[in-house]
Amino acid sequence: MQNTEFLKKAEDSKPILYTETVCIPGRTEPMKDGDEAVFDFGNHYVGYPEITFETVGHHPDAPLYFEVQFAEIAEELDQDTDSYNGWISRSWIQKEAVHMDVLPGTYRFERRYAFRYVRIRILSVSGNYSVVVKELKADTVTSADDAALVKVPFTGKDKRLDEVSVRTLRSCMQDVFEDGPKRDRRLWLGDLRLEALADYETYRNYGLVKRCLYLFAGSTLADGRLANNMFMAPEVECDDQTMFDYTLFFINTLWDYWSHSRDTATLRDLEPVCMRQYELLKECFDEDDLLDMNKAGNVFIDWNFQLDKQASGQAVYIYALKDLVKIRSELGKDTDELIREIERKTEAAKSLYDAEKGVFISGPGKQISLASQVWMVLAGVTNQETGQAVMENALQQNAVGMNSPYAYHHYIQALIETGQKDKAYREMHVYWGGMIERGTDTFWELYNPADPSSSPYGGIVVHSFCHAWSCTPAYFLRKYFRPQENQ
Amino acid sequence: MQNTEFLKKAEDSKPILYTETVCIPGRTEPMKDGDEAVFDFGNHYVGYPEITFETVGHHPDAPLYFEVQFAEIAEELDQDTDSYNGWISRSWIQKEAVHMDVLPGTYRFERRYAFRYVRIRILSVSGNYSVVVKELKADTVTSADDAALVKVPFTGKDKRLDEVSVRTLRSCMQDVFEDGPKRDRRLWLGDLRLEALADYETYRNYGLVKRCLYLFAGSTLADGRLANNMFMAPEVECDDQTMFDYTLFFINTLWDYWSHSRDTATLRDLEPVCMRQYELLKECFDEDDLLDMNKAGNVFIDWNFQLDKQASGQAVYIYALKDLVKIRSELGKDTDELIREIERKTEAAKSLYDAEKGVFISGPGKQISLASQVWMVLAGVTNQETGQAVMENALQQNAVGMNSPYAYHHYIQALIETGQKDKAYREMHVYWGGMIERGTDTFWELYNPADPSSSPYGGIVVHSFCHAWSCTPAYFLRKYFRPQENQ
Repeated sequence: MQNTEFLKKAEDSKPILYTETVCIPGRTEPMKDGDEAVFDFGNHYVGYPEITFETVGHHPDAPLYFEVQFAEIAEELDQDTDSYNGWISRSWIQKEAVHMDVLPGTYRFERRYAFRYVRIRILSVSGNYSVVVKELKADTVTSADDAALVKVPFTGKDKRLDEVSVRTLRSCMQDVFEDGPKRDRRLWLGDLRLEALADYETYRNYGLVKRCLYLFAGSTLADGRLANNMFMAPEVECDDQTMFDYTLFFINTLWDYWSHSRDTATLRDLEPVCMRQYELLKECFDEDDLLDMNKAGNVFIDWNFQLDKQASGQAVYIYALKDLVKIRSELGKDTDELIREIERKTEAAKSLYDAEKGVFISGPGKQISLASQVWMVLAGVTNQETGQAVMENALQQNAVGMNSPYAYHHYIQALIETGQKDKAYREMHVYWGGMIERGTDTFWELYNPADPSSSPYGGIVVHSFCHAWSCTPAYFLRKYFRPQENQ
Repeated sequence: MQNTEFLKKAEDSKPILYTETVCIPGRTEPMKDGDEAVFDFGNHYVGYPEITFETVGHHPDAPLYFEVQFAEIAEELDQDTDSYNGWISRSWIQKEAVHMDVLPGTYRFERRYAFRYVRIRILSVSGNYSVVVKELKADTVTSADDAALVKVPFTGKDKRLDEVSVRTLRSCMQDVFEDGPKRDRRLWLGDLRLEALADYETYRNYGLVKRCLYLFAGSTLADGRLANNMFMAPEVECDDQTMFDYTLFFINTLWDYWSHSRDTATLRDLEPVCMRQYELLKECFDEDDLLDMNKAGNVFIDWNFQLDKQASGQAVYIYALKDLVKIRSELGKDTDELIREIERKTEAAKSLYDAEKGVFISGPGKQISLASQVWMVLAGVTNQETGQAVMENALQQNAVGMNSPYAYHHYIQALIETGQKDKAYREMHVYWGGMIERGTDTFWELYNPADPSSSPYGGIVVHSFCHAWSCTPAYFLRKYFRPQENQ
């Protein structure tokens, strides 16, 4: 269902794309068939590369045929791309084979890539000439305004943690808040919420958040349900997939946006969209006010098929409705029904608490997971003391852990909200710091400290190594760990 | 050595490129990873193809990665391109792998290809969608004006022979007379001469011949020697390679051009260029007035490393000088020296005649080849009767034969000039007709009737199947075998 008024407002908030041309020298050695070289742009960029070739020998009498691979981290270049056969399309691998007819000359790639490293392999020249890679350039793009970046004088490991977070956000800020500039290059609701939180502390591009909110509201499923992600091309269109939690996060994202921007016109425009989600999703509960997973459909929470998501989903619902109450209050609208709904669902949530084990359990298997505890904390189902206890108890009982940086974000937030700032700080540095130790300029879609090379997709070559949902250390550091507090 | 005045005249004669958009339907079956289909444009074209894809299933959530191969003849598609490892660069193989980010949509290739057939193989989509090839289009280009084509009412096998010849020429007529629009896409002197002969009987694009003559004259080696071929990009520049016979053919090409165009200004401009070639190449003879192969350097004659080229080269020199006499006579210039030179070299050529065997021999090994006889005929070293005899005698003595359509052209011409029109007609139909029988729309760079799949390059996938020097049946048919004479 398209809402042209909303899509018009999204279009009106289209961001400026800042372009910067970055340029690195090539190398002087002439290259023939089979020769290869890796070039390093020195940081993570998103943009349109070009490669300038010169020639040595006779006049080129045959096209140059070369292969190029763009990589966000050096490790991508070590992967055997030909053998990749995972369930994420191999079309995401940033590798091209190119014929160039006129030499010397510059080949400009029309596709956008996300990269720091570029490997060039000569597939074929002719017996009469060799090529020299003279220079690599890229017209890089981002809608992050470097001049607007809020400067905070972090030092030491905080400095790098912040830098890499900010770089991650910067590379994901394009025409929309993308999930990852390598993959999926798409607007996802779950990523948007975290990117917006980081943005408010860094680039403060409120217009881009507004645009994304209107995009989601501007193209929905037939019944008004928000999709979990949006396609921008060939035209704006929502995906036909939904997730229970992502849908609800629209409410929180809108409230966060208003809290920073005080843009009441947008709040008023989009409040009915929030109410529509509530109306649709309140039907997903059973007679005991507990989330019915058959009705809820997909609930994301974490990149983890083993995770039982009933308890977390229940909590996300409460978490979202609390912001919906704030939205309607701000607009002077009635909130009685919502408050009663929150009470009922909170009571039901408490029934998931296993007093003996001291944790919230989830689903028919009574699964103990860290995610369940974290979300009960974030939803305010527990007080601070209980919240701290359920997380600790869960960890002591071999709870199902967190897999993704996205889930880790919520764990860090829950630690902070239960008064464990020091632990939050340490855990953040251990987890995201682990990626830094492995050499990166941006934070990753997936990171398993116990097995950093593992991939749920069947190969890390399709992983996004600059992923929006991983950018929130900048938010935590800037909101909770500013130098004056921390030093 | 650049002559800017000549290059300016070449630029002024730049041809109109006629464009025609041809369009063929795709197919309705959805395609997934590994699926492939071949599409047939129905005739040989040169141009910029585009492929329009639609999708089936969910909204595309990953790029389309597909491979496409353009082929002049269907047999090219059967070749294992990966295993090709010949000495002609594999960069000539018209095969690309392409990522397309926005679907449905049209991918337009920026490179020019020569093709009738297009094979599309899907390398990767995603689990969420399939693609349908909806349509293939190509903006085709040629500097041949179809409206200007001289129509001759050929019938039967003559009709097809003429059609395929004309199509070959048409596809080679681009910004210059190319040798082949797939490979090398370049202006070669040897090909130019034959293309011009066919052009005078068909499209009559005299301007394009003029342009090519000025291009050769406009960029030469330091001593004024004409290169055997010219590069057009990134700027006009002669190759640093020469061939004795190709250099001399500039003279014949100029005279042929004047004979048809009566463009005396060009004749006057370029006569000194011809004289310069004569001055340079007259030094390539020994004290007996025989061609010294160490001084002559490369002599082409045929695509045949076994062929001894002394006798042929001697004859080509005489052949060229005879046209130089005509050029200078037309311009009222002195020709005495040239006539004496022709007489001396003709006498010397006659010394290569082996009276016992009844053939001209060549080189220290006294090789008997058909090419030697053919060129002695064309140079007028023999009279008609002797000419006929030496060719027949050579064939009866297991002479080294003709390999290329280029060499065959001269054999056919020699048969005609020795009064053997019927044999010429039959031989032409046997040789070029053999390519037609194998299914082609254009004539080939190389064709060995005894072993049509053989390749001196190490694989036919790099062969040019539309090659200028193979287009002359249209010239022969139209000049010597017009319907009223032949039926």
